[in-house]
Amino acid sequence: MQPQVTLVGAGPGDPDLISLKGVKALKNADVVLYDALVNPLLLNHCSPSVKKVYVGKRAGKASYTQEEINQLMVSHALSHGHVVRLKGGDPFIFGRGKEELEYVQFFNIPTEVVLGISSVNLPGYYGIPLTKRGINQSFWVVTATNKEGNLTDDVRLAAQSSATVVLLMGLKKLEEIVTLFKENEKGDLPIAIISKGSTVEGKVIFGTIDTIVEKKRKVGVTSPAMIIIGEVVASHEQFNEWREETAAYFPA
Amino acid sequence: MQPQVTLVGAGPGDPDLISLKGVKALKNADVVLYDALVNPLLLNHCSPSVKKVYVGKRAGKASYTQEEINQLMVSHALSHGHVVRLKGGDPFIFGRGKEELEYVQFFNIPTEVVLGISSVNLPGYYGIPLTKRGINQSFWVVTATNKEGNLTDDVRLAAQSSATVVLLMGLKKLEEIVTLFKENEKGDLPIAIISKGSTVEGKVIFGTIDTIVEKKRKVGVTSPAMIIIGEVVASHEQFNEWREETAAYFPA
Repeated sequence: MQPQVTLVGAGPGDPDLISLKGVKALKNADVVLYDALVNPLLLNHCSPSVKKVYVGKRAGKASYTQEEINQLMVSHALSHGHVVRLKGGDPFIFGRGKEELEYVQFFNIPTEVVLGISSVNLPGYYGIPLTKRGINQSFWVVTATNKEGNLTDDVRLAAQSSATVVLLMGLKKLEEIVTLFKENEKGDLPIAIISKGSTVEGKVIFGTIDTIVEKKRKVGVTSPAMIIIGEVVASHEQFNEWREETAAYFPA
Repeated sequence: MQPQVTLVGAGPGDPDLISLKGVKALKNADVVLYDALVNPLLLNHCSPSVKKVYVGKRAGKASYTQEEINQLMVSHALSHGHVVRLKGGDPFIFGRGKEELEYVQFFNIPTEVVLGISSVNLPGYYGIPLTKRGINQSFWVVTATNKEGNLTDDVRLAAQSSATVVLLMGLKKLEEIVTLFKENEKGDLPIAIISKGSTVEGKVIFGTIDTIVEKKRKVGVTSPAMIIIGEVVASHEQFNEWREETAAYFPA
């Protein structure tokens, strides 16, 4: 038995958006440790005998700490062999993948990495390009909240900048985020919120900095969600039609 | 025969980093239009009868213009049915995917979109996280050059900011980019260049703003390449060892 840990990015939600390499890792797994953000259909790629361990939050129960997850990876690799650590999105974009790799490598257990499609990419799924010629040359990806749940300093900087801003983990702080942009006289800036993107429950709402809070309240958007702010949002065909009304878009 | 165009992100180079959804689209294609940045091994997913059209640059010949590629998508959809437009990375991250979609939709031809792993994600492939707790809360993704081949304004802004900077299409302008960072007194900032990332020819060089130009000259790095600048680069285990010498890393 060879201990090994493979960090796999599961992609943003749609189970067909995992990579071929990720599927191969799941097929060769002895144990899978998976998060709340991982689509459970992905576990069907594993052989029936695989041990599946859910390490996300459960209603009413404390979730596993990062330290506990780290220890579970190592203990299962030593007792069972090939551990696949299946994480939502990409392991290295706000995924703590590096911390997990370092922990495992400290025990001299071989590691591998399989990149994933990040939730950063989700706007494209709904016809909103992250970049478009003639509109923008860059986008700034920011985690909106730190582990204490407070706004990060970089959100403040991004609100002052001319960059297209992509915010992860910002839904609960939407009012505060919007205030930052208003302080910089950006009330008219187009914004979209994508909730549960690329899943059957996916929702997109369009608005401006001035209107989005009220729209979110009416539509009832839930986490996980990502936010994109910038003129590129207005390049969506239905933006002008939807900016004036409370509209939610449910893709097929 | 139903005309249709599916935009598929092929991923960053490794043919196993395409999504399952992308493979399914290739299996159902009647025609594939593919770029220079696409790994040709991906065409093996198509049935043998598929028409394969290379629309990238060839040595000594002019490449197809965007307008010609747009027209080829439409004409092939009308004459052959299902066209897969296979693009390197993700179609909506500096990929002109939106322009292509809009052109096809103008002809009332149904479109679909398959996201891809962007070259933005490549640092993770080599043990450099794009984000790490305690180091950074954001990264700014910038196209270094515009279509005329000049530095973009956003590179200048990013060089002034505190963000981790991810530059695409910047290799030929490395000297100018480095100068911008030096003007902001960032000579010691860690930097990595990833060339042909996730392929068998993949190379990574580490350095600082002050040393990277000389290292690039010695190692002989070629396009396509992406650049990552920020403290997060120094979290690579071998950074301190390699920053002092000309080192290229060839993954297994």
